[in-house]
Amino acid sequence: MTRPMTMAEKILAAHAGLDEVEPGQLIECDLDLVLANDITAPIAIKTVREITDKVFDPTKIALVPDHYTPNKDIKSAEQAKIVRDFVREQGITHYYEVGCMGVEHALLPEQGVVGAGDLIIGADSHTCTYGALGAFSTGVGSTDAGVGMATGKAWFKVPETIKFVIDGELAPGVTGKDVILHIIGMIGVDGALYKAMEFTGSAIESMPMDERLSISNMAIEAGGKAGLIPVDDVTRAYLDERAERPYTAYYSDDDAQFAQVVEIDAADIVPTVAFPHLPSNTRPVAEARDVKIDQAVIGSCTNGRLADMRQAAAVLAGRTVHPDVRCIVIPATQKVYQQCIAEGLMDIFIDAHCAVSTPTCGPCLGGYMGILAAGERAIATTNRNFVGRMGDPTSEVYLSSPAVAAASAVLGHIGLPEDLEAVADAAE
Amino acid sequence: MTRPMTMAEKILAAHAGLDEVEPGQLIECDLDLVLANDITAPIAIKTVREITDKVFDPTKIALVPDHYTPNKDIKSAEQAKIVRDFVREQGITHYYEVGCMGVEHALLPEQGVVGAGDLIIGADSHTCTYGALGAFSTGVGSTDAGVGMATGKAWFKVPETIKFVIDGELAPGVTGKDVILHIIGMIGVDGALYKAMEFTGSAIESMPMDERLSISNMAIEAGGKAGLIPVDDVTRAYLDERAERPYTAYYSDDDAQFAQVVEIDAADIVPTVAFPHLPSNTRPVAEARDVKIDQAVIGSCTNGRLADMRQAAAVLAGRTVHPDVRCIVIPATQKVYQQCIAEGLMDIFIDAHCAVSTPTCGPCLGGYMGILAAGERAIATTNRNFVGRMGDPTSEVYLSSPAVAAASAVLGHIGLPEDLEAVADAAE
Repeated sequence: MTRPMTMAEKILAAHAGLDEVEPGQLIECDLDLVLANDITAPIAIKTVREITDKVFDPTKIALVPDHYTPNKDIKSAEQAKIVRDFVREQGITHYYEVGCMGVEHALLPEQGVVGAGDLIIGADSHTCTYGALGAFSTGVGSTDAGVGMATGKAWFKVPETIKFVIDGELAPGVTGKDVILHIIGMIGVDGALYKAMEFTGSAIESMPMDERLSISNMAIEAGGKAGLIPVDDVTRAYLDERAERPYTAYYSDDDAQFAQVVEIDAADIVPTVAFPHLPSNTRPVAEARDVKIDQAVIGSCTNGRLADMRQAAAVLAGRTVHPDVRCIVIPATQKVYQQCIAEGLMDIFIDAHCAVSTPTCGPCLGGYMGILAAGERAIATTNRNFVGRMGDPTSEVYLSSPAVAAASAVLGHIGLPEDLEAVADAAE
Repeated sequence: MTRPMTMAEKILAAHAGLDEVEPGQLIECDLDLVLANDITAPIAIKTVREITDKVFDPTKIALVPDHYTPNKDIKSAEQAKIVRDFVREQGITHYYEVGCMGVEHALLPEQGVVGAGDLIIGADSHTCTYGALGAFSTGVGSTDAGVGMATGKAWFKVPETIKFVIDGELAPGVTGKDVILHIIGMIGVDGALYKAMEFTGSAIESMPMDERLSISNMAIEAGGKAGLIPVDDVTRAYLDERAERPYTAYYSDDDAQFAQVVEIDAADIVPTVAFPHLPSNTRPVAEARDVKIDQAVIGSCTNGRLADMRQAAAVLAGRTVHPDVRCIVIPATQKVYQQCIAEGLMDIFIDAHCAVSTPTCGPCLGGYMGILAAGERAIATTNRNFVGRMGDPTSEVYLSSPAVAAASAVLGHIGLPEDLEAVADAAE
């Protein structure tokens, strides 16, 4: 009989061909998918060419040009071309050209390319997103991704797991984004350093997949190696509609050893905003109302999915963005974009004076499509608010949920959707 | 009794407070509107500050941040901020923030800010667009625009006028864009140097306003100082729906002296493409089918209006963009964008695998949103195909109508909409 294992340990063991693994153990694993984007793929491709003429499996590599595409400048055009040429040469099947493109971590779940039980590495920090589907999925350096593309294998040190149990009912308006900001605020940006985070409890179980993906997406912002959510009916419903391969659900044994078990009462979580310049620098939105903003960005791999668009649109409907604010809405994929049209959300955004961009990472990483000048402040549904992340080194980024970002765009300062009703009442 | 005058001469005379003017005469005129964008306004603003504390009239200045907005980078964010701060300080009424923004020469006609009989200068080459509404409107340097914003006046040398008479019926699929490319191909990029161009004839009279705007827009590509179209019922219907001020129709006298009268048989105009690297380097599309393309851009101040979107969508409906082509569609204003949604064009574009951008000049001038790598080729509905205009100096831009650009996007090479039916027939 094998030792009791966590969900993360079981996935790693299965991909190492081992019955059991334990934290700290170094193992070589078979990969289900290797991912890179237009910034990281060219470096990975260089590594591939140093090792081999042929990638290990052209169906198990996903290349998504999403950071600076449609091309921002000549340099990014050259980067995108390197990726495109490699795709054609190698016959890589999971490539998403401009026009079929989306923000990678929104696109690959939506397209059914990632699923439960998968072991995935990606040359992008937020590869941890797919943990919400029950995958062990982690960001690696571009060179590591290149080795993965060449060999189909990667070395891992088995991480310990921290289990988060969020029980109870989240208050209305408290979303997955608030949950993960709350957790990062609790444990800090290194609170889960090289550990797997496992998110459980009744609050998670009652949460739709789009919000779960926001939680797993930001595991890396606490230093987590992965951010897993056990497979349940919500996961199955999501995967059964999309998954292009069979998937496997792994669960932590009841007697598995966790590095820590963190219990959180869902009722303690309020709408949360992370102040500059760390995602852990959190405060309740209610205590941030004196922060005037110049821009609001609603989108990204953290919050660019349909549920996010719906939450933002619910706040923006019948309202207009404050004249001192630019509000930029970026549906994360073409499918989300089209769903926004079908549901009338796009009309709400445009009537409210938002600019709606084609899918791109753009402003999140200071790429393009909404860069900040000196001293400007943005509220954003993105995942990082490091110094200069969205523009000038003296600019500031505040992280929030879509509803809070939308409300702030209308108010002109950080605030809650219910503040808008107070404003409307006062005006009567 | 005054000397017989052309339409252009009459508008200039009226704004100089003179009964008559003649070509070559230097006159000082009162301006109805002074325009600048996010690239040129900061220079114009610097000039204003050297002259005065207050602009001559905050209701007669239009500032449209459209070239690198939503901000492409920190530098463009700083430029946009200079404009925004100036707008607030001076109380400028015609300012269009991100979210209310559009490509200036599509936006200002749509918003009724420009009209027949106006004298307009703009720190942008394609300010000549408003000639389609019967205005004398011309591009100037940023410093000249600054002087205009400060004083409300500008010096002009009265230009001679070349009259183009395009009589007859245009063949189906031949648009205003083909007409102006045909003319530039005939007379060359300096064929109308410092002359007013006046476009008349039954082919112009039967043309909708959106296509007329494409013609006037490119007058500058033949060196024209202005590109005027006499006011008729089409103009009146357009202006009566929009114009925020009264307008005045001026007509060339029957015995006015023209530098030249160019008669063109509409039946001689075919779908036309301008090869690199000059707009005058035109050929029939039918002779360009061996040119493979990497990108198609449908939009810009030349062809980003609703009629253009409809023409592109008619070709793209039920088809998909060639896998080797990125097709980027950019409705020129938020209103056009929303009309595209309402008419189902947006769904056609996305189903066809186009990326649809928020309004911006972007790729037209190599700004962002679709820049070309070395050796890449684009077909574009834009107005200039100079060396490196859309990216790397070795890249190439071919200018065409929206229908031809859309057909080429599907074909993977330059071609006509009817070529798609041939392909479909062959496949049956």
